Amino acid sequence: MDYTIIDIPKITDPRGNLAVVEKASIPFAIKRVYYLYDVPSESHRGGHAHKECYTMLIAISGSFIVQLNDGKTTTEVFLNKPAKGLIVPTMVWRELTDFSSGAVCLALASHDFSEEDYIRDFDKFKSLAAAHVKS
Amino acid sequence: MDYTIIDIPKITDPRGNLAVVEKASIPFAIKRVYYLYDVPSESHRGGHAHKECYTMLIAISGSFIVQLNDGKTTTEVFLNKPAKGLIVPTMVWRELTDFSSGAVCLALASHDFSEEDYIRDFDKFKSLAAAHVKS
Repeated sequence: MDYTIIDIPKITDPRGNLAVVEKASIPFAIKRVYYLYDVPSESHRGGHAHKECYTMLIAISGSFIVQLNDGKTTTEVFLNKPAKGLIVPTMVWRELTDFSSGAVCLALASHDFSEEDYIRDFDKFKSLAAAHVKS
Repeated sequence: MDYTIIDIPKITDPRGNLAVVEKASIPFAIKRVYYLYDVPSESHRGGHAHKECYTMLIAISGSFIVQLNDGKTTTEVFLNKPAKGLIVPTMVWRELTDFSSGAVCLALASHDFSEEDYIRDFDKFKSLAAAHVKS
């Protein structure tokens, strides 16, 4: 399963810690920033893949689990540290689950929004992923 | 005092809210993302201005106060909503204070890091701000 955890550079300080995501620490330019908040702890989010957009997911507060599926294998990544970034590549189905109380998921995306870049149907994703592996 | 609060577009959902910062909702391209976390509630952060870099500050979790000073007047902005972004323009000294427990300050910056762009001495800031107003 193709994913990468990045150590985001941070400056630790008794007055509070500072983490910085800039071009030296992320493999793409940031075009869009979005975040999930006020998520009930029983909630389940995500359920899509991207054709071209890379995403970095960060548990900027609290924790959650990211379930990844590349069409052949699945894995789970537990995120609970603000200075760890999970890079989700293209053609990987992701779902977010097991949010802790007060958790916030920060997402940094490599592309501007385009509905055409989203795959929102899992069966369609599986057939596209199979074709993607073959090509 | 020159500052702007932006309503960040959000999609409210019982499974959690999603806020999106993209080119239509922010007056600059995002070059750098940084965030303050694990901030003790008595802490005081900030104490700098930028010559060219714009910053959007967001209370992505919890709350804090942003003290702004343009060299002539000061004001305080209380941030406590994840879908409100405070645009801090150039040549404005900012300090962050009164963090709530668990607060996280997300900052989106218009420029890559450059130490030359920072003004970290308040007296120097005041003299530069006075010259800036005259010019």
